[in-house]
Amino acid sequence: MQNIRIVMVNPSHPGNIGAAARAMKTMGLNRLYLVAPRYFPHPDATAMAAGAEDILQAAIVVPDLLTAIKECQLVLGLSARQREIPLPSLDVREGVKQAAQCSGEIAFLFGRESNGLNNDELQRCHYQIQIPCGSEYTSLNVAAAMQILCYELLLAKKTEVNNDPMASNLASVEEIAGFYQHLEESLIEIGFLNPEQPKLLMQRLKALYQRAQLTTTEINLLRGILRAIKIK
Amino acid sequence: MQNIRIVMVNPSHPGNIGAAARAMKTMGLNRLYLVAPRYFPHPDATAMAAGAEDILQAAIVVPDLLTAIKECQLVLGLSARQREIPLPSLDVREGVKQAAQCSGEIAFLFGRESNGLNNDELQRCHYQIQIPCGSEYTSLNVAAAMQILCYELLLAKKTEVNNDPMASNLASVEEIAGFYQHLEESLIEIGFLNPEQPKLLMQRLKALYQRAQLTTTEINLLRGILRAIKIK
Repeated sequence: MQNIRIVMVNPSHPGNIGAAARAMKTMGLNRLYLVAPRYFPHPDATAMAAGAEDILQAAIVVPDLLTAIKECQLVLGLSARQREIPLPSLDVREGVKQAAQCSGEIAFLFGRESNGLNNDELQRCHYQIQIPCGSEYTSLNVAAAMQILCYELLLAKKTEVNNDPMASNLASVEEIAGFYQHLEESLIEIGFLNPEQPKLLMQRLKALYQRAQLTTTEINLLRGILRAIKIK
Repeated sequence: MQNIRIVMVNPSHPGNIGAAARAMKTMGLNRLYLVAPRYFPHPDATAMAAGAEDILQAAIVVPDLLTAIKECQLVLGLSARQREIPLPSLDVREGVKQAAQCSGEIAFLFGRESNGLNNDELQRCHYQIQIPCGSEYTSLNVAAAMQILCYELLLAKKTEVNNDPMASNLASVEEIAGFYQHLEESLIEIGFLNPEQPKLLMQRLKALYQRAQLTTTEINLLRGILRAIKIK
């Protein structure tokens, strides 16, 4: 992610700059460029950063877009609108895959709150990136759009699978079989299960507990309850 | 998406409610529940909604969490923290896949800005949903987290799979609460649970049964066993 810079073009509301910094930091990005921001630094930016002030302090303020991206090898512009000039368009998940294939400097551009990136700016881009929307209302806040982008960038980077901490303690087949036998005997003893006419009772209970994927600790807990019933 | 409700628990900042409404609307969601919000309605909420005021106007304000979710068959809580009580944890992309298989009512819970969902609230959940983060700094703004969730819900809907036939019969939150109460009373009666020193016993059992995602039929079966213990 160290080759990725996030570029905000002419942001009007400093609160959005702070929210953007927070969105970036949660996903492990830290290189923010601000092209001629209306107000920066600003208390609203700091307030909305909420712990991501380091991103703001390291932000690079530049007077024009070219300065922000001149050494980049891949430039992708976030834009909801269809433009006159056809630029190849990718949805955000495809866009981050493109970015992952590039080891050089990469810039993602975010436009003004009011009207996004203009045609001149989009013509600096190799791709236009769109975030899928569920309705006619496609007005994503700039920091919200950045949150989605940074999240997709993080997932694209992550290749390792989740290690479920619970999985190491899962009960063995033998332990589970012991519990089922204990359960069946107890149900017979309290008169809930008729061994002459067992029907599907045990199968139903086993299905339920199989689904829960019991741990050894839980097996011991459940068998403790069964013992308590017996000595009542 | 019409079976999905978004529940915000005790939001402090009305601006976040507005930003949440905007995040929902961009992705085609529209059912917002507010559990005892500190300020609502409020001009900051309206300002941050920016075109999604219809979501705010239709929002349902309730005094407590149970009222917001009692008829839900699947409850998923967004939470960054590790808890003492193991609740099955899914990342957000896996979580929306679970939700896509359920045709009943579904709730996604978002906690307080300051400290998220408490243990009681998480124990109403079938799953804890985590949003992957790229660093130690995992402090997502609540509306930013909701933007990611709603985005993933939209993408999951676009690639919808067949519904799990079992899912339609899942027990409601109210049925599950009734079972837990019955179970607790029974354990006290057989002397397994000391109400003076309950320790983590009920939390552990709840975690186990939440994981199994009980159906109404199974609830009835388990309560039948509890009644049989009583009359033994």
